[in-house]
Amino acid sequence: MNLFYTQQYTDTELILSGEESHHCSHVLRKNNGDEIHATDGKGSHFKAIINSIQKKELRAEIIGKSTKEKSFNAELTIAIAIPKSNNRLEYFLQKATEIGVDKIIPIISAHSERKKINIDRSRKVLLSAMKQSFQVYLPDIYPIQAYRALLKNNDSAAGIIAHLDPEAIHIFDAIDRLKDTTILIGPEGGFNDEEISVAVQRGYVKAHMGQNRLRTETAGVFACSAFQIKNRL
Amino acid sequence: MNLFYTQQYTDTELILSGEESHHCSHVLRKNNGDEIHATDGKGSHFKAIINSIQKKELRAEIIGKSTKEKSFNAELTIAIAIPKSNNRLEYFLQKATEIGVDKIIPIISAHSERKKINIDRSRKVLLSAMKQSFQVYLPDIYPIQAYRALLKNNDSAAGIIAHLDPEAIHIFDAIDRLKDTTILIGPEGGFNDEEISVAVQRGYVKAHMGQNRLRTETAGVFACSAFQIKNRL
Repeated sequence: MNLFYTQQYTDTELILSGEESHHCSHVLRKNNGDEIHATDGKGSHFKAIINSIQKKELRAEIIGKSTKEKSFNAELTIAIAIPKSNNRLEYFLQKATEIGVDKIIPIISAHSERKKINIDRSRKVLLSAMKQSFQVYLPDIYPIQAYRALLKNNDSAAGIIAHLDPEAIHIFDAIDRLKDTTILIGPEGGFNDEEISVAVQRGYVKAHMGQNRLRTETAGVFACSAFQIKNRL
Repeated sequence: MNLFYTQQYTDTELILSGEESHHCSHVLRKNNGDEIHATDGKGSHFKAIINSIQKKELRAEIIGKSTKEKSFNAELTIAIAIPKSNNRLEYFLQKATEIGVDKIIPIISAHSERKKINIDRSRKVLLSAMKQSFQVYLPDIYPIQAYRALLKNNDSAAGIIAHLDPEAIHIFDAIDRLKDTTILIGPEGGFNDEEISVAVQRGYVKAHMGQNRLRTETAGVFACSAFQIKNRL
């Protein structure tokens, strides 16, 4: 089964456009009368029958709609320094989507190896991971922000900063169940002392991820896993 | 800092050979008198001074040795169907090593997409991930085994089979602390009913990894994360 993405729909009809339409009609060679499945990335799942295929647009009649609630009521935001290689960034985006994340905020910190990100490309990776794993919620990705701006603007109920430090507790113990949480993940060189102390002043809890030194993208995925496990039913 | 790998050492001297020697003397251009760090992948960490560089062999005098105990006393074996793409396989090997795994057993199950694996190449990925994350334990990778042979030969104290099923419990709740554990991870199509029932007969517990459908390699990494979190200090 393939899952398509659309934000254009009424009660009775949905439209696939651009790459979604192309993939459906040209790559998968679907025709009028064929059944397709689609999501709006906000919890809705549509079953529909194709009734018109045009050059850049495919229309389908909705014959079923279901809405999936999130399995628990707390949002996870991962604010993360961008790894140097695209592969490692895309790996993080893909695996975080599969395991579960709500918002991703790329950040620039003192030791950041990379200070730019292609948001359109990143959004495509998220979209593709969502469809691949048959999910109906698309994580948001935000424009890159300076570390201090992030700390200032972010209003999650709880904050955690990943840091290998004897005073730090394990991230699993730092996460509160059912609470909107932001987890800060630093670059390879880690956050510097000043960055850590500013975060701590703002109420972020220092937490480590075990004995091993994880790469940035691995730490991001480990943090998503810990949050999902803490909030398991 | 770079960490090298060797299994050739006495109380006073270690030898790097092959690619390790090449990397040290040619790529990093280390010379006689330079300090290097090495591990045997079994818990030892050596500090040594290079005293001879020959074509395919580098010798160094050991000036310090420390042994790192594992942070807890329980082994994790992941028996996993091989993903079709090399990228996804290597991603699993790399991230599992960073997060923590002891043994990896590639398996062939009914829905396996791939029934061969390049063990030498896989071992190189494990080695490189160990060095990259400054660890001193190298995970073992075994030759590929048929699913039933694995069930027959494996003697872990505890076994878990990953399976999305209403009867299954969450993998985090299925893992016992401080117990050698084997976790079975199926291919994209999952294990078939017979495979599941044979495992259950042999005492494996059915466990899911949350609401989302994870790809094989993601499930493998999630299982390693859950085991590490369960056994955290």
